[in-house]
Amino acid sequence: MYPYLFNPPDPTDLRHMQQALEVARAGEGHTAPNPAVGCVLAHGDMVVGQGFHPRAGAPHAEVFALEQAGAAARGATAYVTLEPCSHFGRTPPCADALIRAGVARVVMAALDPDPRVAGRGAARLQEAGIRVEVGLLEAQALRQQAGFRTRVTLGRPRVTFKYAMTLDGKVAALSGDSRWVSSPASRERVHRLRARLGAVAVGSGTVLADDPRLSARLPGEPERALRPVIFDRRGRTPAAAQALRSEAVVISAPEADLSHLEASAATLLRAGSLEEALGGLGALGFNDLLLEGGPTLAAAFLEAGLIDEVQVAIAPKLLGAGLSPLSGPLRARMSEALELPEPRWETVGPDLWVSADLSAVPAVKLSALLGQP
Amino acid sequence: MYPYLFNPPDPTDLRHMQQALEVARAGEGHTAPNPAVGCVLAHGDMVVGQGFHPRAGAPHAEVFALEQAGAAARGATAYVTLEPCSHFGRTPPCADALIRAGVARVVMAALDPDPRVAGRGAARLQEAGIRVEVGLLEAQALRQQAGFRTRVTLGRPRVTFKYAMTLDGKVAALSGDSRWVSSPASRERVHRLRARLGAVAVGSGTVLADDPRLSARLPGEPERALRPVIFDRRGRTPAAAQALRSEAVVISAPEADLSHLEASAATLLRAGSLEEALGGLGALGFNDLLLEGGPTLAAAFLEAGLIDEVQVAIAPKLLGAGLSPLSGPLRARMSEALELPEPRWETVGPDLWVSADLSAVPAVKLSALLGQP
Repeated sequence: MYPYLFNPPDPTDLRHMQQALEVARAGEGHTAPNPAVGCVLAHGDMVVGQGFHPRAGAPHAEVFALEQAGAAARGATAYVTLEPCSHFGRTPPCADALIRAGVARVVMAALDPDPRVAGRGAARLQEAGIRVEVGLLEAQALRQQAGFRTRVTLGRPRVTFKYAMTLDGKVAALSGDSRWVSSPASRERVHRLRARLGAVAVGSGTVLADDPRLSARLPGEPERALRPVIFDRRGRTPAAAQALRSEAVVISAPEADLSHLEASAATLLRAGSLEEALGGLGALGFNDLLLEGGPTLAAAFLEAGLIDEVQVAIAPKLLGAGLSPLSGPLRARMSEALELPEPRWETVGPDLWVSADLSAVPAVKLSALLGQP
Repeated sequence: MYPYLFNPPDPTDLRHMQQALEVARAGEGHTAPNPAVGCVLAHGDMVVGQGFHPRAGAPHAEVFALEQAGAAARGATAYVTLEPCSHFGRTPPCADALIRAGVARVVMAALDPDPRVAGRGAARLQEAGIRVEVGLLEAQALRQQAGFRTRVTLGRPRVTFKYAMTLDGKVAALSGDSRWVSSPASRERVHRLRARLGAVAVGSGTVLADDPRLSARLPGEPERALRPVIFDRRGRTPAAAQALRSEAVVISAPEADLSHLEASAATLLRAGSLEEALGGLGALGFNDLLLEGGPTLAAAFLEAGLIDEVQVAIAPKLLGAGLSPLSGPLRARMSEALELPEPRWETVGPDLWVSADLSAVPAVKLSALLGQP
């Protein structure tokens, strides 16, 4: 097992790995508790097979690519966005499938942080005489697998806090009206984000005020149901709420009266703290959670250090009096504000989007596996 | 008198006019009630004289350029950022000086909106047989003269509302502490803006809390006193406030008790409304006013439609609970927010700056003077 050997990367390798990452995207938002993974099999420039992991329980990306390639897999290079598994889960180990098919070389974007794999998949391939290289386009792969890596490493979903505010920092009028802060182009981006992350969290206040469907609606695509998570400490969610589908989770305090929800299709989760709540969601297989407010819930997440990423749309308009994206925590001094490292700025229609990672995506260091310093 | 004749502009003309605009910058913030103006005299590529208007009462830009050129002014082209004056003010008309010096051609960036000039300067030059063209780099000139043009046209200074906020829309902690929201690079930009506009407005709350010096402090330059304007409806400004210099103006309600300020060097102005207050500042010769808060004062300006431009620094950090840049006006619906046309985004150090004009800079249309449609 080696770090990826070419610097700068070989253009053919680069193109195939980019394609594997692109192919993987079709699974984004559908694969939890697994990550989205893509695989491309090629002889030099010629692609002979490709596949992605479509959903948990379905075969892995490598299996689809190998099926498509058939006998052409022999002597090919496999480009995989994640280390092939070496253990029996719901499906047999992909490392074995690659060995059986006679693949000559495997290039991986990133190692699997799952302790059942974590280098063992790569080692198994190498023991079978396959040339193995790791780390091509790793940053992009870590980003695509960020939620999965957080759940496997920390036992909880990765939390992305998203809001849209005016240039004077308001997410809604004092009446609560927020239609619309941002442009149609920004709202489409929100729905893409929802679809990619697959799960949306709101407070019970939002459910009571808006009864949202919590779905992803994209032009030219059928409406897609997400996994709604309702943070509802006191059990205020009405039994008739649109979000109470079978995929939904309602999280309440241990003492809350939830008798009116017991007949609903949703999963009822009791938790004494946000940490416990997120641990519960991790156990339920949530890789990601898109936190869409309100200000009090978001403040509690921030206070608990449980926001991993922010995505903010800033609309070039001034509202005046209104509601803030964060109503806490309380910090006495400006110097105590939480600095966002390496923010990314981009315009979307008339709006500006700012995004930043508050926590690094967990990675497996190849040097650690090789016993290097 | 013609619109500038070359399209695209002649490169030599363009370079000289750019230089005239650049030269004019040395006067920015010092010339009120006059605008900053620059003049370049050239024969083809060769510059034979240049000048700027340094402060009210001093000679105009053309005079310095003509002095420098001496006999070389004969037959030269004059590039002026503003139409030369045709009337006796504190100095004799510049149009006459250009005629006497034997200048052959005058290229102006923009006509003077002052009703005592407004085309008469250009007409006077033309009657003397000088070729006159108008409109080269007009947009840049209008921007440089924005405050002067607002005062001459509307009788009040141009108001630029500036604030620095966190990514969650807070300008200070709840304690009032705001050191510092933005980066050193952004704070330097604020001081450049202060120096360029020459006058800073704050509410009495800010004076009471911070006792600011309201000066421009730039690296490598001596600290520069600005004209402080204190909006102090109830007369709460302490007599010992640092801002109460001879150039300062305190604006209070007609009924406020200002007896403790009567011995101060500041000008005391009574006004029953913001409109009246700004009219008073216009009469005192203020071209510009940099509004630096607080949230209630800014809200009153916004409500009255008296904000002409916004300059916002957004720092990539999350504070939580805190103070908003605008605590009003009250709008029931998000759709009533004030949209900013054509916002400009740029990064300054780690921060993002957004600026936009809420009102167009008053211009004099050449077509109107020529009787064209």
